Amino acid sequence: MTSTLSEARRAELDSVAARADAAAAPYAATAPGERAAALVAVADTLAAHAAELVALGMAETGLTEARLNGELTRTAVQLRLFADVVRDGGYLDARIDAADGDFVLGARPDVRRVLTALGPVVNFAASNFPFAFSVAGGDTAAALAAGCPVILKGHSGHPRLGARTAELVAAALDGAGMPDGTFQFILGQQEGVAILQDPRVRAGSFTGSIPAGRLLADIAAARPAPIPFFGELGSVNPVFVTPAAIAERGAAIAAGYVASVAGSAGQLCTKPGFVFVPAGHGLAAAISDAAESVAPHRLLNPRIAAGFGARRAEIFQTPGVSVLAEGELNEDQDGQGWATVTIVSVSAETLRAQRERLLEEAFGPLSILVEYPADADLAGLVAELFEGNLTATVHIGAGEDSAELRELVRVLSGHAGRVLFDGWPTGVAVTPAMQHGGPWPATTNDSSTSVGTAAISRFLRGVAYQSTPQALLPAPLQDANPWNVPQSFAPAGQSRSWGSAS
Amino acid sequence: MTSTLSEARRAELDSVAARADAAAAPYAATAPGERAAALVAVADTLAAHAAELVALGMAETGLTEARLNGELTRTAVQLRLFADVVRDGGYLDARIDAADGDFVLGARPDVRRVLTALGPVVNFAASNFPFAFSVAGGDTAAALAAGCPVILKGHSGHPRLGARTAELVAAALDGAGMPDGTFQFILGQQEGVAILQDPRVRAGSFTGSIPAGRLLADIAAARPAPIPFFGELGSVNPVFVTPAAIAERGAAIAAGYVASVAGSAGQLCTKPGFVFVPAGHGLAAAISDAAESVAPHRLLNPRIAAGFGARRAEIFQTPGVSVLAEGELNEDQDGQGWATVTIVSVSAETLRAQRERLLEEAFGPLSILVEYPADADLAGLVAELFEGNLTATVHIGAGEDSAELRELVRVLSGHAGRVLFDGWPTGVAVTPAMQHGGPWPATTNDSSTSVGTAAISRFLRGVAYQSTPQALLPAPLQDANPWNVPQSFAPAGQSRSWGSAS
Repeated sequence: MTSTLSEARRAELDSVAARADAAAAPYAATAPGERAAALVAVADTLAAHAAELVALGMAETGLTEARLNGELTRTAVQLRLFADVVRDGGYLDARIDAADGDFVLGARPDVRRVLTALGPVVNFAASNFPFAFSVAGGDTAAALAAGCPVILKGHSGHPRLGARTAELVAAALDGAGMPDGTFQFILGQQEGVAILQDPRVRAGSFTGSIPAGRLLADIAAARPAPIPFFGELGSVNPVFVTPAAIAERGAAIAAGYVASVAGSAGQLCTKPGFVFVPAGHGLAAAISDAAESVAPHRLLNPRIAAGFGARRAEIFQTPGVSVLAEGELNEDQDGQGWATVTIVSVSAETLRAQRERLLEEAFGPLSILVEYPADADLAGLVAELFEGNLTATVHIGAGEDSAELRELVRVLSGHAGRVLFDGWPTGVAVTPAMQHGGPWPATTNDSSTSVGTAAISRFLRGVAYQSTPQALLPAPLQDANPWNVPQSFAPAGQSRSWGSAS
Repeated sequence: MTSTLSEARRAELDSVAARADAAAAPYAATAPGERAAALVAVADTLAAHAAELVALGMAETGLTEARLNGELTRTAVQLRLFADVVRDGGYLDARIDAADGDFVLGARPDVRRVLTALGPVVNFAASNFPFAFSVAGGDTAAALAAGCPVILKGHSGHPRLGARTAELVAAALDGAGMPDGTFQFILGQQEGVAILQDPRVRAGSFTGSIPAGRLLADIAAARPAPIPFFGELGSVNPVFVTPAAIAERGAAIAAGYVASVAGSAGQLCTKPGFVFVPAGHGLAAAISDAAESVAPHRLLNPRIAAGFGARRAEIFQTPGVSVLAEGELNEDQDGQGWATVTIVSVSAETLRAQRERLLEEAFGPLSILVEYPADADLAGLVAELFEGNLTATVHIGAGEDSAELRELVRVLSGHAGRVLFDGWPTGVAVTPAMQHGGPWPATTNDSSTSVGTAAISRFLRGVAYQSTPQALLPAPLQDANPWNVPQSFAPAGQSRSWGSAS
């Protein structure tokens, strides 16, 4: 990727990186109460400007007012949740091992360990979540909570919304007394790459397509000093429905399926792309009827509409594919695509035979119903067909249990970051226990999550302090514990009994 | 790197990966008590075979009996410590968020999250720690504790010790009822690369040189499905001594310095490579005398001896370098190198001017004393000269404190995984709070540690379960909590007050 950035633009980016670098130490040193208040100030300003921001988002993305209002609220709630995480301090994993003259390997010094901010983070905004995975979204909230300055690379699909949101975020942080440079906003692909390559930047995060995410992950890994890169990329979110579930609530499953595919015009990374149902399921008419009642929804931008059209055509042309609900894709006078829901069906055998054409994600309101025979080995199909996914779903009958079901759940938990039952994967709860991640290509790095409070850990590194005078220890490791964070202790005298319970 | 592996050898490696893959599910499913007992069984067998193993190690590495006995004990203790970690279960970070009809973003389902084993891990043994960072060393202990099968790539410097240790480890795991394939041993560089590239392998770890570690990290990152790679590479471990420390205990500092450089012939990743002392320190004679009293020590192998000789010659020939203790490097009749301690001194200005020649790690018993002027900005020197390090050390006077000292400590904590006071960085306590890591090039991935109980996290990934029937939940997430692990709860009804404390 050859850069054509001008000298002047490079100088601007250099100053962006320099500001973030200068902010890193003072921002990391902010006390929990100050940093938490700053996060809440960001949440408050988003909420206070909801009408303006949602209107901008509607114009730039075609997403609905209801969806964008919900997403903005979610984004603000996420910041408030992280404020509590910061105040609690458990994320610091503060450990204090007492000096131990009787240590089994010879005298142990006083050793203390805390997790600390990595430094400046570049966060690449997503096209399809202009709030929750963009300027003030999950990775920004997690990085700011961790004490890392953020350089936000806005998405070309909503540049005005991005710039306006960034202005509000920066002003809120400034108003809360955070250092200059704690949050900065840039636009441009080459600009994003240049920042990702800057030695002062210590981590990257991204939500988007597999090709773009892989390109950036490779750039991060190829730096003279490699940095962690957390990309959330593609996912087809397979769903498995048992005969018992169909028998109990087939109609509800059909309706829920179509609603999950239709929401936000299917432009969600958790859209159920493949739904496995037993042959003879009898849901075709219900699915088709539900799909036909869905009103057209604008796709995010013409590029995505074109991509969806091509993918849909490729699927239609694949041998063995039956169309359950054809759906529509029309272009308006502005060149924007408008789509309704497309559902096709295939046999499991066809899916296996045509995997090269069918398995790739279709980003938009299209899903593939896969009919499996009574003797199908679903766990085996998962292992054979699917790479990593953000989610995997199982619909079962009340109290259903079997060795096959357990094996399916086990295999799915190895393939996906979230396994859910009797529901639909769209809709990701912002809650402490959420895992939004998964093995490649769901993410470039499955060691953390991009939703939920555990997301803070991706922007932290451990530092141990040995025999350090109290006055020179970071606050979370001091005996006086001025921030009142959880500290775990390993007292002297324990090491000789390590392992003795086993 | 073109592979010249034969078809037959490739088939063998394929079967190694297949065995590890087959072991992954049953091994990950072992109950904490079983897995902990297996780790203790490995520790017990190492201890029971100490005499045999240490003799093998002495012959292959030239390390002393005392050192190897200590290292073997440390390795066994590390396994016992991880047995307790497994029994405790806190590492699973089990989180349970109750279903919440009043959730601020719309009804929240029951969401639970646990950390789970990544799958098969390939661990590359180190030359310089034939026990503690080799077959049954830290990464093996952490991976086994996490529930990951291990494929151990032995080091060419101690292949017989490696194979024998591996035999004992595998037998102990087998005797403890662990699945076939939980632990396997291979030799050969190309073999290691082939396993690292195998899609069934989910993580890699390594301790060794920067070029080899970077090569492997790049291979891991370039896989069709990239995997985390935890390489511990190079470190020069700068030490800063204040005038007050010299005044209080100059002689002890001189003696401690030389002992730290001399131990294991300086072939430790934590050897103090640069010691900054105030100009006019007056320790030259004490350092020189101490160095001259050190007996020759065999270097690990002829390749390392040759590398040390070349590096030492380059340093001697660098303008501005004064020799405090010349030391010796002689070759014996077997081609092995024997070295005593070399200490040279330079001014801080010379170090800055000659950084290209001087800053690179010298692997062996050589260290550079750097004399700084009274007005030196030590924190600025660190930022200017040093990349990431495993450790950074400060020697201060009793109660010494100043803005400059605080700034130095702050900068060091950004450059190193462990900051220690009034001691020497060699000797890494195996204890819960240890951090053995650091920014590039100390490691390829500073998100975890290779010593201490937090090391287990590098081999784990999060999985969330949503609305999952109790019977289908993994044990740590069940309400009945059959493994009695710590579970953190987010009850219903809290979300509306998130952030309200701020």
